[in-house]
Amino acid sequence: MVDILHRVGIKSSLSVVYKALATREGVAAWWTNNTSGEGRVGGTLEFSFSADGVEIGGFEMKILELHPAELVRWQVLNGPAEWIGTTISFELKLEGDYCIVLFKHQGWKEPVEFMHHCSTKWAIFLMSLKSLVETGTGRPNPNDVKIDNWN
Amino acid sequence: MVDILHRVGIKSSLSVVYKALATREGVAAWWTNNTSGEGRVGGTLEFSFSADGVEIGGFEMKILELHPAELVRWQVLNGPAEWIGTTISFELKLEGDYCIVLFKHQGWKEPVEFMHHCSTKWAIFLMSLKSLVETGTGRPNPNDVKIDNWN
Repeated sequence: MVDILHRVGIKSSLSVVYKALATREGVAAWWTNNTSGEGRVGGTLEFSFSADGVEIGGFEMKILELHPAELVRWQVLNGPAEWIGTTISFELKLEGDYCIVLFKHQGWKEPVEFMHHCSTKWAIFLMSLKSLVETGTGRPNPNDVKIDNWN
Repeated sequence: MVDILHRVGIKSSLSVVYKALATREGVAAWWTNNTSGEGRVGGTLEFSFSADGVEIGGFEMKILELHPAELVRWQVLNGPAEWIGTTISFELKLEGDYCIVLFKHQGWKEPVEFMHHCSTKWAIFLMSLKSLVETGTGRPNPNDVKIDNWN
């Protein structure tokens, strides 16, 4: 088992960051515009990505935990084979002026090349979350910041 | 043992990316301006970081491997306690128009919070490497892109 781990700090209250992680509208503004579903425990959220106008993939997440101002945790129900069954969590805590987000994408079976790609891509999307909360504008599309030949 | 893994793709030849990784001048232009030492196998490179004009830390790396257009591998001799003894590698390969960089920072004993931070920070510095090679301008200082309250 190998994990993707990240830490970003956002100049904001816990509740504002939590809202950007726990609601469909919030996630749509930093991860992908094309988001549907219900932001409640046991519900599912569906995300799909396009690049250059073509759908390039999507994910279906079951919401496992929602603890206001503390934790959001999802399990991947559908998506790329390597993602199925993995869990994604966002832990929040306050340090000075910052809401710290500890991010974990856990349960990868092997450290495949696609995992390297997703690790970098998650960092960029977490910076999009930071930008959304701090400036009002996220970069919720793969093409907003291109990291490699896979987007 | 837990690893930090990343993948970026740079529109460039292998040799140009290799030069940015294997030489003191190259690394100084995307990771930290303040770099000294010798870019040869068995030699050491010293990096120091400043933020807001104050030195906030540094690293000493032993160069373990240099394979032109293929691989650069360092071992951390000095730096933050969690980094000592870890290894950092950059594997290169060509895919279409892209030089793909597979990055690994291996040998972390525990997935501490500082590791989460370094994972995000490496992604941002690898994007600085991409920017340097593709546009001529990197962002080789921690304050160029601030990710959290630790810089």
